[in-house]
Amino acid sequence: MRKIYLAGPDVFLPDAIAIGQRKKELCAHYGFEGLFPFDNEIDPNVADADRLIYRANEQMIRRADLGIFNLTPFRGPSADVGTVFELGAMVGLGKPVFGYTNIAENYLDRYKGTYTTRQEGEGKDAKWYDGNDMFIENYGNADNLMIGNALADHGGPLIRHRAAPERLFEDLTGFEACLRLASQALPKSA
Amino acid sequence: MRKIYLAGPDVFLPDAIAIGQRKKELCAHYGFEGLFPFDNEIDPNVADADRLIYRANEQMIRRADLGIFNLTPFRGPSADVGTVFELGAMVGLGKPVFGYTNIAENYLDRYKGTYTTRQEGEGKDAKWYDGNDMFIENYGNADNLMIGNALADHGGPLIRHRAAPERLFEDLTGFEACLRLASQALPKSA
Repeated sequence: MRKIYLAGPDVFLPDAIAIGQRKKELCAHYGFEGLFPFDNEIDPNVADADRLIYRANEQMIRRADLGIFNLTPFRGPSADVGTVFELGAMVGLGKPVFGYTNIAENYLDRYKGTYTTRQEGEGKDAKWYDGNDMFIENYGNADNLMIGNALADHGGPLIRHRAAPERLFEDLTGFEACLRLASQALPKSA
Repeated sequence: MRKIYLAGPDVFLPDAIAIGQRKKELCAHYGFEGLFPFDNEIDPNVADADRLIYRANEQMIRRADLGIFNLTPFRGPSADVGTVFELGAMVGLGKPVFGYTNIAENYLDRYKGTYTTRQEGEGKDAKWYDGNDMFIENYGNADNLMIGNALADHGGPLIRHRAAPERLFEDLTGFEACLRLASQALPKSA
């Protein structure tokens, strides 16, 4: 049975273990085995707990056959960097990647709605800059161009789902859509 | 001559080309060839420009022998997700990685200083949660635990440098420290 690494800031939720369990059950329903990261299974008070968690997660990524990534914006305009690191690692390892976000809007639209920006030019020639005068991408992507294009080239397109705000990190509609993409893209068992 | 992929949100700076040039010159000084990402060399108005940039950058990462990553917090408490994706890809490809940040503080201290948090318990047992009640890591790292530990396990420890605020994305002190680490860790030529 193919193993899916279940990446996301879900590990930081108060009910992380329960969310991991629900994701594993959905994986099983689609004929996969779900692997949930180790963050909550290593005592945070042991020496070098963070190093142990890192190594356990890296080994789990190496054991997995593919990954599904929760790329919902986290503590800012972009996805959780821990999750994005793992997405990159899977791509480097040559394994298929699928991902979802629970906020449907474009990066630029979300950024403009929340932070100070400066606009240069009008219409299709308009360019936007952030408060540090750094260029803001405007390709219609949900996040930095590396993320959506990595998914499209190495698995399936980013699933954008508009979740209810109070279910932002718990709504699994996009996750299940990724499972369907993965089961279409990959043979039933390895 | 070993090739270094030069990753960072530097590509979004108004003087991105000049910064890339300075980084390449420093690389040459230490006996390396610097490869600067393609973001500014592809016409943003051609069809699928973002896809072309992604593919050019991915190919450049595959051509590189190692990477140096600017992990300065960008538009939020964490590093630029494009850069972090590339860090993961290099680790997945088994290539050495080095990184720096131009803000020296711990993630938790920075987060508490800027955003609303909730504290549970006191002293060494204290735990912190963000506005979505999601756990905030407290391992003394500069960012998510995956980043610093990936660097420490696969290249060199994250260099933390306190840059002047007006030079936050341009100060190359940490970059040069990474070059020194890389030249100590790797044979002079490939």
